[in-house]
Amino acid sequence: MFESAEIGHAVDKATYDAEVPVLREALLQAQYRLREQARFPMLILINGIEGAGKGETVKLLNEWMDPRLITVESFEVPSDEELSRPPAWRYWRRMPPKGHTGIFFGDWYSKMLEDRVHGRIDKAELELAIARAQRLERMLCDEGTLIFKFWFHLSKAQMKARLDSLKDDPLHSWRISPLDWQQSKTYDKFVRYGEQVLRRSSRDFAPWYVIEGVDERYRSLAVGRLLLEGLQAALAAAEQPVNGISHPHSAPLALDLDRLTLLGSLDLSQKLDKDSYQLQLAEEQARLSRLLRDRRIRKRGVLALFEGHDAAGKGSAIRRVTGALDPRLYRTVQIAAPSEDERAQPWLWRFWRNVPERGKFTIFDRSWYGRVLVERVEGFCTPDEWLRAYSEINDFEEQLVDAGVVLVKFWLSIDQDTQLQRFKEREETPFKRFKITEEDWRNREKWDAYAGAVADMVDRTSTEIAPWTLVEANDKRFARVKVLRTLNEALGAAIAR
Amino acid sequence: MFESAEIGHAVDKATYDAEVPVLREALLQAQYRLREQARFPMLILINGIEGAGKGETVKLLNEWMDPRLITVESFEVPSDEELSRPPAWRYWRRMPPKGHTGIFFGDWYSKMLEDRVHGRIDKAELELAIARAQRLERMLCDEGTLIFKFWFHLSKAQMKARLDSLKDDPLHSWRISPLDWQQSKTYDKFVRYGEQVLRRSSRDFAPWYVIEGVDERYRSLAVGRLLLEGLQAALAAAEQPVNGISHPHSAPLALDLDRLTLLGSLDLSQKLDKDSYQLQLAEEQARLSRLLRDRRIRKRGVLALFEGHDAAGKGSAIRRVTGALDPRLYRTVQIAAPSEDERAQPWLWRFWRNVPERGKFTIFDRSWYGRVLVERVEGFCTPDEWLRAYSEINDFEEQLVDAGVVLVKFWLSIDQDTQLQRFKEREETPFKRFKITEEDWRNREKWDAYAGAVADMVDRTSTEIAPWTLVEANDKRFARVKVLRTLNEALGAAIAR
Repeated sequence: MFESAEIGHAVDKATYDAEVPVLREALLQAQYRLREQARFPMLILINGIEGAGKGETVKLLNEWMDPRLITVESFEVPSDEELSRPPAWRYWRRMPPKGHTGIFFGDWYSKMLEDRVHGRIDKAELELAIARAQRLERMLCDEGTLIFKFWFHLSKAQMKARLDSLKDDPLHSWRISPLDWQQSKTYDKFVRYGEQVLRRSSRDFAPWYVIEGVDERYRSLAVGRLLLEGLQAALAAAEQPVNGISHPHSAPLALDLDRLTLLGSLDLSQKLDKDSYQLQLAEEQARLSRLLRDRRIRKRGVLALFEGHDAAGKGSAIRRVTGALDPRLYRTVQIAAPSEDERAQPWLWRFWRNVPERGKFTIFDRSWYGRVLVERVEGFCTPDEWLRAYSEINDFEEQLVDAGVVLVKFWLSIDQDTQLQRFKEREETPFKRFKITEEDWRNREKWDAYAGAVADMVDRTSTEIAPWTLVEANDKRFARVKVLRTLNEALGAAIAR
Repeated sequence: MFESAEIGHAVDKATYDAEVPVLREALLQAQYRLREQARFPMLILINGIEGAGKGETVKLLNEWMDPRLITVESFEVPSDEELSRPPAWRYWRRMPPKGHTGIFFGDWYSKMLEDRVHGRIDKAELELAIARAQRLERMLCDEGTLIFKFWFHLSKAQMKARLDSLKDDPLHSWRISPLDWQQSKTYDKFVRYGEQVLRRSSRDFAPWYVIEGVDERYRSLAVGRLLLEGLQAALAAAEQPVNGISHPHSAPLALDLDRLTLLGSLDLSQKLDKDSYQLQLAEEQARLSRLLRDRRIRKRGVLALFEGHDAAGKGSAIRRVTGALDPRLYRTVQIAAPSEDERAQPWLWRFWRNVPERGKFTIFDRSWYGRVLVERVEGFCTPDEWLRAYSEINDFEEQLVDAGVVLVKFWLSIDQDTQLQRFKEREETPFKRFKITEEDWRNREKWDAYAGAVADMVDRTSTEIAPWTLVEANDKRFARVKVLRTLNEALGAAIAR
């Protein structure tokens, strides 16, 4: 969930100085249009890691925009007035009216996270609190409110560094976080429960935006641009309302601000020489065979899915996984275009029908992620459909994991040069020619669109219970061994648990 | 929640015989249109009290409609195949495809209710199961599925009689319910938890329809008509899809089949003579004053709201409630048209801002129910808005009750003759003339529309935690004493708890 926000996003001063005046002007204009239309309010929820720039960003937004149209509300210790009413009253009384913007600091999410981190509520109570928040947001949304939920993120190391630097800064020392943030245990819990909250509550009508907080210029530009694009889309939609107001939230989930992308951050130069490869491959294959026969694994079941760039070597990696296995031990499911029967059902149906029974090892060659990759990029489904698919996928995978399945997800990544070279090879090798089609060349032209879709996919669906593994696959040997080793580690961890 | 389904609905044979051929023909046609369009599937969930005619109704639907386009699925003991996969798999594998109808017997609701009744899951786990079901249904709906949820109801006495009669019928004895249904404790639990499930999971996109099951002709016609109207509306909507398929579910929630309505079932001839009235009024007023000073009540707070027909005597009933109270003890909130500030907010906002603090006694003269009464009938809000208002109201009231508030809701009911007489009196009495306007006369013309809206309101929002009290108000003295007595009983019960 936080992968894209731990890769060191940064924006240089020149770019920043050039972008800010344009962004401010556009934000102001959007804000005035919002006031004139007065069709809906905008609500911005600020959450995330201590020290990740939440306060600074809000301060900046107030400078950039017209502060008379913004109310910043902070919900810390509830007043007597508030304590003597239902908990939601304190939020209701500060809701921004149509045409205005409310920024909520320490909202319902902070409350439930803190309660959970400090053990004041248990797992089920957290789930109930999330469900309550969902009902509130759904209702606000149905009533027209445009909701943005920001999670400001820092890796643990970044947080520690930032808290230290704040401590020495007299201007900022009043903002030093509560003592418990200094403990890394708090960070771990906060991030673990935070991920659970984000997974459940990131819905198409009110998605979470995760912002890497380490670079001030980056996070400021990122928040500003997301708000601008989301607000502009909502203003346009409100002018042609279809059956009430609906906010598409079709602004890009990941922003291309600094050309630093999740996939771009991979070190694709990693290699294995032939001898090490042979040795490690044999070793991992033997280990896999052993692990799959383990009684504790056979009671649970394993599902490994493979996605990746065209020609990234999915097929050959899968063959190395199955290479040393008794064919009765596994099944491979190839996902291609849906059949007529499948098109007559909800989109997830064709995956549900292939859900393995307990104890089986199933390999998906492509998967349900086609919805948010090829179907999104090629326009085979509507933005509304792929936007809600993230939460539908998370729900689906949660059910798999709850049923005991060990779920391992691989994205095999190569760069454009490597792909070009492999495409050419395929065309030149007679027995490989069937593997390359016009479509592959067309997809290549959409490289950047696919990269964005992959980053969104990983950000929205890489969860503690079902993490993505990004595999550097320019070197096929390196990729195959990494796949096998990751799979084995997941099985080992499942046994140990 | 089950009020309208315990009043002895029945359809006579002549009406039934006349209606059925027309209904069957229309159902068949709708079914064929569904198949031809093949835009969406229809899913019918069957739940409710044992012996209320669930099986018979499904059998009949299969006779009335084309059974080749219907699949009846029953989910009793899960198979080995099913047990070795996530619990939802058994539902997914039997989902009806587009153009078809699936009838699910013993679906996810039966499962969670049985688990709760038999103590296999606790309160929080039931909430989580409901939230899971909501996500599944929301997803199915987003994917186009038209969902009907039927709850077949019997009062406890009706159930006992029915089970007894089945026992003696050799043709039906195989259908005798499990032993535990013979115990009235099971009935009580089932109805209590059932109400909780319905309250939470009756949403605009997949509402519950409660059907009184005692009269076979009534329940058959009711189900047939609801399906027909809902399906026809959905077919029409699917032909002009706006941004995907959406199912309005704007079929009337309550059916006017036998002219027997909830309000019509009230005995409006109840009266109090002047002496008894004086005596009882004084007694109840004294009791109220005492109860409101009770420490346990002052810790909680009380909210009484009044709705009713025009000229039903809300104002004078409220004056009898407040008559004997210290003015510092209570506050009256008059609800009229929303102000400009209020129109700039979600519709519930103007009620949230008036939520009393703990320990206060607040009286609402009209309330949030305007949304599903006048606003619905007069078209001041869209069907989408008033349909979702029921669950928004239930959410809102649940928060009040969770915060300790004792919530008492009154509908003051009179008949048309009494209203006419009071209107005329008002016109003739100079100091009362201000109370009667053109609008009152106009509302009177919509008497039946209002009666339908009231029945729906009571069915959807009278819950264990916040029940409606219907007050027979043709005789003002009777009404006033009933109001006071009900209020006192609610306070007494709250203290005892």
